[in-house]
Amino acid sequence: MTAPISELAALLPEGALVTDEATSDAYRHDSASSCAAGRPLGVVRPTTTAEVQAVMRWASRHRVPVVPQGARTGLSGAANAVDGALLVSMVRMDRILEIDEVDQVAIVEPGVVNADLSRAVAAVGLFYPPDPSSWELSTIGGNLATNAGGLCCVKYGVTADFVRGLEVVLADGEVVRVGRRTAKGVAGYDLTRLLVGSEGTLGIITEATLALRPAPEPALTMAAVFAKTADAMTAVTRIMASGMRPSMMEFLDKPSIRAVQAYRDMGLPVDAEAMLITQSDRGPLAAADVAAMGAICEELGASEVAVAEDAVESAMLTQARRLVNPAVEELGATLIDDVAVPRARLVDLLAGMEQIAAATGTFVICPGHIGDGNMHPTVVFDRGDDAAAERAQRAFDAIMRLALDLGGTITGEHGVGLLKRTWLRSELGERSYALQQQIKSVFDPLGILNPGKVL
Amino acid sequence: MTAPISELAALLPEGALVTDEATSDAYRHDSASSCAAGRPLGVVRPTTTAEVQAVMRWASRHRVPVVPQGARTGLSGAANAVDGALLVSMVRMDRILEIDEVDQVAIVEPGVVNADLSRAVAAVGLFYPPDPSSWELSTIGGNLATNAGGLCCVKYGVTADFVRGLEVVLADGEVVRVGRRTAKGVAGYDLTRLLVGSEGTLGIITEATLALRPAPEPALTMAAVFAKTADAMTAVTRIMASGMRPSMMEFLDKPSIRAVQAYRDMGLPVDAEAMLITQSDRGPLAAADVAAMGAICEELGASEVAVAEDAVESAMLTQARRLVNPAVEELGATLIDDVAVPRARLVDLLAGMEQIAAATGTFVICPGHIGDGNMHPTVVFDRGDDAAAERAQRAFDAIMRLALDLGGTITGEHGVGLLKRTWLRSELGERSYALQQQIKSVFDPLGILNPGKVL
Repeated sequence: MTAPISELAALLPEGALVTDEATSDAYRHDSASSCAAGRPLGVVRPTTTAEVQAVMRWASRHRVPVVPQGARTGLSGAANAVDGALLVSMVRMDRILEIDEVDQVAIVEPGVVNADLSRAVAAVGLFYPPDPSSWELSTIGGNLATNAGGLCCVKYGVTADFVRGLEVVLADGEVVRVGRRTAKGVAGYDLTRLLVGSEGTLGIITEATLALRPAPEPALTMAAVFAKTADAMTAVTRIMASGMRPSMMEFLDKPSIRAVQAYRDMGLPVDAEAMLITQSDRGPLAAADVAAMGAICEELGASEVAVAEDAVESAMLTQARRLVNPAVEELGATLIDDVAVPRARLVDLLAGMEQIAAATGTFVICPGHIGDGNMHPTVVFDRGDDAAAERAQRAFDAIMRLALDLGGTITGEHGVGLLKRTWLRSELGERSYALQQQIKSVFDPLGILNPGKVL
Repeated sequence: MTAPISELAALLPEGALVTDEATSDAYRHDSASSCAAGRPLGVVRPTTTAEVQAVMRWASRHRVPVVPQGARTGLSGAANAVDGALLVSMVRMDRILEIDEVDQVAIVEPGVVNADLSRAVAAVGLFYPPDPSSWELSTIGGNLATNAGGLCCVKYGVTADFVRGLEVVLADGEVVRVGRRTAKGVAGYDLTRLLVGSEGTLGIITEATLALRPAPEPALTMAAVFAKTADAMTAVTRIMASGMRPSMMEFLDKPSIRAVQAYRDMGLPVDAEAMLITQSDRGPLAAADVAAMGAICEELGASEVAVAEDAVESAMLTQARRLVNPAVEELGATLIDDVAVPRARLVDLLAGMEQIAAATGTFVICPGHIGDGNMHPTVVFDRGDDAAAERAQRAFDAIMRLALDLGGTITGEHGVGLLKRTWLRSELGERSYALQQQIKSVFDPLGILNPGKVL
């Protein structure tokens, strides 16, 4: 061990720091398969805020880059190692410190797995809505660092909408609390929202105060299949314009439908252009809601409409959406995009994507959170085929360009990380980008927190 | 006119700049009666972003402080003049630029009055929830600058929750766009939320992209009167724990009830300790909701419960809440606090407030947005009585100390401005306060934007 590393080991409890190559290697990557990862110095897994402070004081003293990590389920490379960095995995700080039923808040350490929190609050009749598809694995800390989305966003919003306050260890090892426990508060600038989504580049979150809601009734589901994508889009607009507030509104394009049907025979119509899956969780109104959503789809020419009458049927209808990810993984290597556009431009996005696929000779599959205009165009290519990988990259980039041209964003919920770092400036513009760099310098003057990510 | 002022006049259209003392005087104050205001250089009322840019370039060149203003309905002195400042009133930039029904967004200039926007979107079946009590007068720009709250927050959230993106003129006159039009987006740090609530200290908002929702059904109202405050608080907790999601949950304490009854005979029981006024806007469920809320109150010993069956009855029941402000104004000069505490600590807040009133020999009246724990303890004293004003100030300060001790905040929705500036550091802590100062320096290195406010 180098002198600095042995100094760090002495500051931490036995076993907190691991430097053997096998372990370090296991922590090098998040789930963005196409992003490069460097060679880390080692991995530290702190169990207290004080240990995180000791790590950051040491890192500042020796100018060692630090990469904070959650469960590494991210899709943009934000948690990937950089050369010479210390990886700080927060997974052992995994205690739910408090669930307050009167104030409807939870106070948690960052390593708590989303599903564990969701279940713990459900046990007392409460609800933590953010539900990224990684929710059974991903940690609250990672969800906060990326401002994770999910299926619920169309009704309930994103992770940031459920964060009241944070405890954060700064680059120099000092700890600050930002935000509050109360429902409202406007004392000073909103540093909480600045830190949420900052992908570990401004500080390390060591505690979070999260807002909860009363648990909704179980949702009912409607699924509809359309011969024409444009009709499905009209249905989306009509349903969103109603007061029904769907708690889920998902979309599968023709390649998604085909991939799922090839993966598992669910009797999906492989010639259909589009499938919508919506839910209502409005309790006594849910049955009428999904019936009304189905009627809208029928009126707009849906070739098949199915409305669930109970939880079992609902689960069956949502399965097509859940199977997209495993189905796509069967097909080859992937570059998963995450653009969002105004809903009114979704038809243009989908048409443009088809043109891009044709022009680049690539295969693009596009499921998405259509109620929010947040789509996941996924470029599929043969593993190990360099020319195909290069074409995929061109398609991937062209889709981001298209989203920006349509008034959208390069990333709706996955974050910038490494994957989209070269694109951020295009979206923000020079001065806005420069302001972000200056804010980064306020929090991290030495540039040791997750360097080379986001900005 | 001094040389710099005549230079500015030449940069602007005829009539945009006014420097006569009578006009300047009329713009010196916002609605925080107890806050000092300086002598301004003059008032400029720009009509375009380009004019705001010209003003800020000029101000930077000559190091002239600038105070951005909306309708000056704020209650913390944030819009008050400082000596030698140019007041920049944004009220003439009052166009609604776009209402997009498909995406459910509105794009507006900052001088649009909240009620005008609310009515314009209602005309196409949409809803802009933020409803500060000043909504008939206050501008969207002012609402954004203070992150205004209102009665709706308990269900719908605050102004910040409805802001997607902003156009902002920086201190040096450059214009940036932050945020987005899409429902979701995580590209870079959230500068939008940083600017919302910054009270004109980081930039001047010249355009906002706001999220709308489908209009809810008209709300129904329940009102209940309690002999014991603690029982009313239990009712609040029980109603908030239900899935009913009240769209309003307001509270009047005994002095509030008495002040309203003295102002207008509404038959209110002047010996009651507490009154709750709640609403449901859940359409077909609203009648059952208010009945259920009423049943909860009765079960907890409410002495009177009234449940509205239609909009007329609903308006009558909410009138007591609406009359608190005019009723209190009749009583004398006021210092209006705006603390928020965790709901579980509301009983302690109200008890502590009574002790503070007794100890300082002051009269404190306390209505509030009780569902959010955001109360407005208002110290009433005789105009022109210096000793009484001094006692009022001590009570006002003690209430903020109490709120902090109870895990709350010094300001739930009115902002820091001048009124609570000396208290901000106590709430934030030294390092968090220092971070805020550094962020201020990033945006405004010369310190010309609303100096002496917030920080």
